[in-house]
Amino acid sequence: MIRVAIIGDGYAAADLVRILSIHEEVELVAITSVDNVGQSISEIYPSLTGLVDITLQETDLGKIKLQAEAAFLALPHGLSVPIVAELAESGIKCVDLGADFRLKDVGTYKKHYHLEHERPDLLAEAVYGIPEIYRDQIKGARVIANPGCFPTGAILGLAPLLRAGLISTRGIIVDSKSGVSGAGRGLSRNTHFCEVNEGFKAYGVGTHRHAPEIEQELSVAAGGKVAITFTPHLVPMSRGILTTAYAELTPGSAPEKIRAALEDSYRDERFVKVLPAGTYPQTRWVYGSNYVHIGVHVNPDDGRVIVISAIDNLTKGAAGQAVQNFNLLFGLSESEALKNPGIYP
Amino acid sequence: MIRVAIIGDGYAAADLVRILSIHEEVELVAITSVDNVGQSISEIYPSLTGLVDITLQETDLGKIKLQAEAAFLALPHGLSVPIVAELAESGIKCVDLGADFRLKDVGTYKKHYHLEHERPDLLAEAVYGIPEIYRDQIKGARVIANPGCFPTGAILGLAPLLRAGLISTRGIIVDSKSGVSGAGRGLSRNTHFCEVNEGFKAYGVGTHRHAPEIEQELSVAAGGKVAITFTPHLVPMSRGILTTAYAELTPGSAPEKIRAALEDSYRDERFVKVLPAGTYPQTRWVYGSNYVHIGVHVNPDDGRVIVISAIDNLTKGAAGQAVQNFNLLFGLSESEALKNPGIYP
Amino acid sequence: MIRVAIIGDGYAAADLVRILSIHEEVELVAITSVDNVGQSISEIYPSLTGLVDITLQETDLGKIKLQAEAAFLALPHGLSVPIVAELAESGIKCVDLGADFRLKDVGTYKKHYHLEHERPDLLAEAVYGIPEIYRDQIKGARVIANPGCFPTGAILGLAPLLRAGLISTRGIIVDSKSGVSGAGRGLSRNTHFCEVNEGFKAYGVGTHRHAPEIEQELSVAAGGKVAITFTPHLVPMSRGILTTAYAELTPGSAPEKIRAALEDSYRDERFVKVLPAGTYPQTRWVYGSNYVHIGVHVNPDDGRVIVISAIDNLTKGAAGQAVQNFNLLFGLSESEALKNPGIYP
Amino acid sequence: MIRVAIIGDGYAAADLVRILSIHEEVELVAITSVDNVGQSISEIYPSLTGLVDITLQETDLGKIKLQAEAAFLALPHGLSVPIVAELAESGIKCVDLGADFRLKDVGTYKKHYHLEHERPDLLAEAVYGIPEIYRDQIKGARVIANPGCFPTGAILGLAPLLRAGLISTRGIIVDSKSGVSGAGRGLSRNTHFCEVNEGFKAYGVGTHRHAPEIEQELSVAAGGKVAITFTPHLVPMSRGILTTAYAELTPGSAPEKIRAALEDSYRDERFVKVLPAGTYPQTRWVYGSNYVHIGVHVNPDDGRVIVISAIDNLTKGAAGQAVQNFNLLFGLSESEALKNPGIYP
Repeated sequence: MIRVAIIGDGYAAADLVRILSIHEEVELVAITSVDNVGQSISEIYPSLTGLVDITLQETDLGKIKLQAEAAFLALPHGLSVPIVAELAESGIKCVDLGADFRLKDVGTYKKHYHLEHERPDLLAEAVYGIPEIYRDQIKGARVIANPGCFPTGAILGLAPLLRAGLISTRGIIVDSKSGVSGAGRGLSRNTHFCEVNEGFKAYGVGTHRHAPEIEQELSVAAGGKVAITFTPHLVPMSRGILTTAYAELTPGSAPEKIRAALEDSYRDERFVKVLPAGTYPQTRWVYGSNYVHIGVHVNPDDGRVIVISAIDNLTKGAAGQAVQNFNLLFGLSESEALKNPGIYP
Repeated sequence: MIRVAIIGDGYAAADLVRILSIHEEVELVAITSVDNVGQSISEIYPSLTGLVDITLQETDLGKIKLQAEAAFLALPHGLSVPIVAELAESGIKCVDLGADFRLKDVGTYKKHYHLEHERPDLLAEAVYGIPEIYRDQIKGARVIANPGCFPTGAILGLAPLLRAGLISTRGIIVDSKSGVSGAGRGLSRNTHFCEVNEGFKAYGVGTHRHAPEIEQELSVAAGGKVAITFTPHLVPMSRGILTTAYAELTPGSAPEKIRAALEDSYRDERFVKVLPAGTYPQTRWVYGSNYVHIGVHVNPDDGRVIVISAIDNLTKGAAGQAVQNFNLLFGLSESEALKNPGIYP
Repeated sequence: MIRVAIIGDGYAAADLVRILSIHEEVELVAITSVDNVGQSISEIYPSLTGLVDITLQETDLGKIKLQAEAAFLALPHGLSVPIVAELAESGIKCVDLGADFRLKDVGTYKKHYHLEHERPDLLAEAVYGIPEIYRDQIKGARVIANPGCFPTGAILGLAPLLRAGLISTRGIIVDSKSGVSGAGRGLSRNTHFCEVNEGFKAYGVGTHRHAPEIEQELSVAAGGKVAITFTPHLVPMSRGILTTAYAELTPGSAPEKIRAALEDSYRDERFVKVLPAGTYPQTRWVYGSNYVHIGVHVNPDDGRVIVISAIDNLTKGAAGQAVQNFNLLFGLSESEALKNPGIYP
Repeated sequence: MIRVAIIGDGYAAADLVRILSIHEEVELVAITSVDNVGQSISEIYPSLTGLVDITLQETDLGKIKLQAEAAFLALPHGLSVPIVAELAESGIKCVDLGADFRLKDVGTYKKHYHLEHERPDLLAEAVYGIPEIYRDQIKGARVIANPGCFPTGAILGLAPLLRAGLISTRGIIVDSKSGVSGAGRGLSRNTHFCEVNEGFKAYGVGTHRHAPEIEQELSVAAGGKVAITFTPHLVPMSRGILTTAYAELTPGSAPEKIRAALEDSYRDERFVKVLPAGTYPQTRWVYGSNYVHIGVHVNPDDGRVIVISAIDNLTKGAAGQAVQNFNLLFGLSESEALKNPGIYP
């Protein structure tokens, strides 16, 4: 059994506990908190009543180093760097679900998060944790930068097409729609029930921090700079992200190559499913699961490509992908604790 | 009092009855049905209990010609043409909420609705009923083609920019998100509660019939052919459409002209509100009302324009706009029965 | 035009503004706030954009006395007493949507709200504002205690049966289900979207403050003490209260008298509709409206009576009923600004 | 591996497939259908894409007898009797999720389902499948009558109190609230999205078929006749049942014995959790899981007992409990494939 600590007790942490509670190789030894120290995790999340009975402790790294072999960090941005530094240097493998190790360029990080990165060396070392793209690097890593929820859906849909040179690197539009849990457990007007329910809106128009993360990884795939227009929207539901991405066929590319590129990329992947032609994903189909569904449409008249992907933002978009990365880090079956299909209906 | 008949008893008809029940110049004299003849409208829609007590009758045009001075048709496409023909020729003003008089090109109509149009003359005469664009023509019309719900939101957001030559006629993307009432009262798997709730999906990808309608009116505004990419999505809510439209600034256009063009177009309009910079609309704000909210963002780096509009699909997107047109047809105050703000929260 | 001030800017205040914005005899002259002074009401509630453009001011009673002839108070409990006292004594008619003037017994008030009532004289004078029960007293009042949302639904369903002696005063169970807007605009874990959505729960079990208010008015109706068991529940929707009340036929009462007593009580009421036998109300049918729907079932085998009522908690349960009371206070048509049917679907 | 067939392809069947897809001792060999023969189960439920790839077949019992060692039947009432008869007599263990083997009294069955029971002998033999009550009988059974969803929640909450003689057998009220999936996958006006969303209603008032089933099992627990008043309500959510049950302490019973009786009954049960005093269940906490949460309140003043239970209607209320029964039938770990906590948030 691998002894695991979770740093943080928000919704991503809750989904980690849910998943790890059925993980056959994990002993969950600690969960840390700022606001709820001394309470049981099942008082905060009564879905765990009688199943997980850990008392939340302060984030005492000395103690955690004695307790754990691996740590998941689920913290607001800006807080992970010193913790990951200390834990990783003590030989504790870290999967950071926050944003601090995702942007490889410290200038971009500073621009979007308004912070000077304290450990560019660790940033350079950290592996961006999409297993379907970086599986080999993940296996040998000390620090995993677990991707953002919007980036996970957008990158998995577009990277294969850019890698194959089938779509233009210019003019890509990523129109995403997220359930409310992406905003976390902290109280805000934007997540107050009556302000969200029975309504739909865009937010972060032109300014959302996930845009540079998507651009970074699409640029890697394209082998050259990709800039996108990214608009997230809020859906009156708890879980799920649907991403509708628009791109243009590169001149001379045959429309049928689009589907083939996606199918070829994901044929052997357990968690990514390319849907049949004419079928487009629905977030409900992956609810509570680590699966990704992708549908694609090409308009032969104007060469417009539409790629639509669905994920559960808390699972494949956060905790599930984190456990997938953890499984790789420790040489376990990649799908351990992640086999559940989506809850439907 | 103007004697009014409603042909049809689906959700658009229900919203017509709701609005007309407080209209001070209207006497609702008849509602027709296929499935519910002999029942009271308040048995079908108990929200009307004790308020509107009309027994649904068959669609007997002879009878309606004796009863009514104006008719609203809220029928599936393909059924309105002969009815409008007969009523209009008897001097009864018609507002058709269906699709049969919207597409001016009979070839386009045939391609998308798989029907030969029986009365191209009436089609040519009918006025496309967006008052903010065609107010003068509407006042003198016999037949109003009440716009589709998606077109209403998309056209009101984009037409002023095309008219002013500020955005390119090429590459426009219209990514729309609709509540479920747009699919009507008829039962289908796609509107079964458990198939929709807590989920989000695209539908009609590349094939939706509202695309040519949007293109027609944007082409009028641009004074030249506009082709769009249109993707509707289904939101787990009853009412509302949010449209996120993407376009490109024409070379040499100043970003600040975009907002000015919208504000100039709608300054004197009661029902269209251009929101302040940095504020983007939310469908909740126009819930149950005839108002339209528009927000706009221009990225000066790449000249990308994002126009976001919100309407209530059943009100400004159907019944409310129909009553607005009716008010114009009969020389009444344009906002009679339509003054209610959105229900919030 | 009657000059009106609203004290408070929460959801009940928002619904007041919505309703008063179409009231033909009202000029809204002031809205007060604690947190949002200096902002426009349409910044807080953008549904009012371009329709109501009042800047929120501090609660300066001297100023309000110069501005207004009537005041609606929509405040947390405990705050209304001195304000009502000062305004009423200056001849300003007050409709208090809070709880401070509802419980006639100061001991009961103290027990449930943990406050000594400062003005028992005004409390004695205030009229409990259910027009269907206290219409004559309301017309001549200075101060209206606008009823709580749960009490409105429960009392309208049960009072006629107790008044007629048809049901036992013992063992009444009131099982209520409310939308989330009843909890107001203030942020709390209980109204955070992801804690409410796709879930259902009871709250305030055995302790809710609306129980003594219901008991007070049912006791008046019965002419003797009535004690109830009251359990509120939270429904994942914004608006609406459904109340399912269980009582027992008094010995010798004929089951058919139950329906007759309800129909007799409400035959001439505009806002209360007793539904046909076999039809039970749905909150959707009164959404955003001032109507009340009541359904009733009597089991002849065991004499169990089930009365089910539906209201919109913010409208008939708060702002709509307040305007209804206001209309009576000023000799206006009781239904002015309140005629809209529920928004359906 | 135990070879298993599922008869039926509605929502309960879908939840069976979801659960069995991670069951380590089960090979799912057949799923039958009426409407969808020839399609893959993952076409009907795309959440299963790439995970379960079984083509739906007709219900050919000869074939199923060759294929399977156990069968789950998830059929509308009235259809199971001949199928169970034939399969059970061929040595295939049957778990019937329908209603045909639940009511032990053929007269009661006939009264409520309007059918003459064809096999009273098999009915007598079938074991009512609540493992927490009938575990020993289940282990040796051939035919399991899997309980209804409402009965599961109501019986688990009330049976221990009746068994201990702590509450009166008279005057029990069961006020239940269910998500929409309980109505199944078949299309109906009552499950059309816009008729359910943002609304709340009672249904089946005084007539629901689950009342006699609850009465049967509560009578067994009490050792004497129990009659209840049962009112189900529809909640605008997909999954979950909350049951609020009201009863009266028997004279002389100490209030504190109520909680003790529940805790004693379920102390060793994996799936039933009695929540701490002052905590009441929320359906969200058991979403998609086989767990049951129970909260209890006793009013010492009037001796009123309120027992509140939460289940997922499709899992513990149908498919999960069916698999729990199956595990017992085959001597497997009772919780195999059922360990997942509820999905939260």
